[in-house]
Amino acid sequence: MHATVDQGAFLEELLDHGLFVETGVQGIYAKGGRFEEVRLGLDALLTRAAASLGAERMRFPPLLPRRQFEDTGFLSSFPHLAGTIFAFDGTEAEAALQHERASAHEGWSEFQEMTDLVMMPAACYPVYPAIAGRGPLAEGGVFVDAGAAWVFRHEPSGDPARLQSFHQHELVRIGTPEAVVAWRDQWAERGLGLLRALGLDAELDRASDPFFGRAGRMLAASQREQALKLEVLVTIAGPGPTAVASFNTHHDHFGSTCGIELADGGVAHTACLGFGHERITLALLRTHGLDLERWPEAVRRELWPG
Amino acid sequence: MHATVDQGAFLEELLDHGLFVETGVQGIYAKGGRFEEVRLGLDALLTRAAASLGAERMRFPPLLPRRQFEDTGFLSSFPHLAGTIFAFDGTEAEAALQHERASAHEGWSEFQEMTDLVMMPAACYPVYPAIAGRGPLAEGGVFVDAGAAWVFRHEPSGDPARLQSFHQHELVRIGTPEAVVAWRDQWAERGLGLLRALGLDAELDRASDPFFGRAGRMLAASQREQALKLEVLVTIAGPGPTAVASFNTHHDHFGSTCGIELADGGVAHTACLGFGHERITLALLRTHGLDLERWPEAVRRELWPG
Repeated sequence: MHATVDQGAFLEELLDHGLFVETGVQGIYAKGGRFEEVRLGLDALLTRAAASLGAERMRFPPLLPRRQFEDTGFLSSFPHLAGTIFAFDGTEAEAALQHERASAHEGWSEFQEMTDLVMMPAACYPVYPAIAGRGPLAEGGVFVDAGAAWVFRHEPSGDPARLQSFHQHELVRIGTPEAVVAWRDQWAERGLGLLRALGLDAELDRASDPFFGRAGRMLAASQREQALKLEVLVTIAGPGPTAVASFNTHHDHFGSTCGIELADGGVAHTACLGFGHERITLALLRTHGLDLERWPEAVRRELWPG
Repeated sequence: MHATVDQGAFLEELLDHGLFVETGVQGIYAKGGRFEEVRLGLDALLTRAAASLGAERMRFPPLLPRRQFEDTGFLSSFPHLAGTIFAFDGTEAEAALQHERASAHEGWSEFQEMTDLVMMPAACYPVYPAIAGRGPLAEGGVFVDAGAAWVFRHEPSGDPARLQSFHQHELVRIGTPEAVVAWRDQWAERGLGLLRALGLDAELDRASDPFFGRAGRMLAASQREQALKLEVLVTIAGPGPTAVASFNTHHDHFGSTCGIELADGGVAHTACLGFGHERITLALLRTHGLDLERWPEAVRRELWPG
């Protein structure tokens, strides 16, 4: 995907100052120490906010078992964004040929077979089967802080805010329909407040996911109409604003798919919040400048208290 | 790979206490909050140690550009451990068929094509091209703390200390042959001391990598003979000890491959240290018990000062 002039200029600025380092693939960058300092401040801020409300911490690797993935429906909605993991299981002769081809930068995909793992498509996905595995929920349900997991989206782009690999900080609520919707709505306001307290010019709006194909357009319209997805939007590099956080309800989709039971035996409903660490960090750099020392004192206190 | 009785029992204990959570795939686990608390303490300890010696911080995603990977020689030495990333680039009709197959847990690999990304095979790999991209080294070379990146190894196992996806904390030195070897040897002693200060019964020894096939046996013997690889070993779950950190020199392998020039125009030599976060955390849990509150005060101070 082509970048706008503004996006291209911001990427150049990030590269020139060592906040991003190129790797040769669009949307895949190394990050410099200063970028990471902001991101870790944000991580700690979100972790504290969730902990103060009683969240249980769980952490997940950047991979999901393929079988779980096949059950999510992701391939129906977003086949173009998924990544799957392949590996070699051949003889020594085949290994030699594979190496020869690869060294010459020729094709070697014929030597690779699909494994039982895929790239993490969304950081809340592994939470549902993990909770289902415990048996029926206790009264009140659960609130999980899944931390900032690495998520993969196969969409190379010149926009520095559209990465192929990024940290999605997910908070997940599982419980009764009423509890879950109320939690999502409260957190949408809390998330907006949290980002505004960092000096960001943020707005909350209804949104839809980038569903694939013609049928996807209807899904998107329906999602927006039912307000299943709310987003916090900030302008990073123009022209339009970028979603930096989303607040989603799933009705009983994951409860049914993964078999999560309420204390009284009904099917659990779920909601999740995703904060995009890199996007929020970029929004902060764009808003307050690349010199962290000169950021407003109030913002610095939020990110690096004590 | 089958686990020993001791390894299987330790895994059960970790699962029972919520330190690991099963996902259905061997070597892929979610981690509970207590596990993460130890790992983050270790992360901070290693980061402080490197920073106090002037390391520059860089951070990398869990993916490597395939072209860089093809140049490393990894496919010659470890074809069985690599993971490659495939994705879909077809029509709506193909997407529908792919989804149908996947939902029924039938094969759908024919719809996936190799992308220009692979799983990160070793956390030091992306550092060399990133440094090469800056032009010739300054006098004295560089010392990079690449942090704890997610590394992938395709080796399903019932041993909780042999994960398919784990954090490898890499420190990298690039400079003259003498500077690089001296740094590696000093850090081997420093790393050993750091792990012993955590109460681990750790030993330093020459080691070799798990090279593939018959030719690999000779490579391993040569590596050991030249002391290219030193390891810190700790017994986690028996029978044998497990490597929890390694200290490696590469002569001019990466300097030549990536084109890293010394200040005087020669080819740079490189060395790297890798600390396995999950293995060290498991060694600590095995040594001091699963109740962090009851760990020796001196160990707690190292991990969680202030």
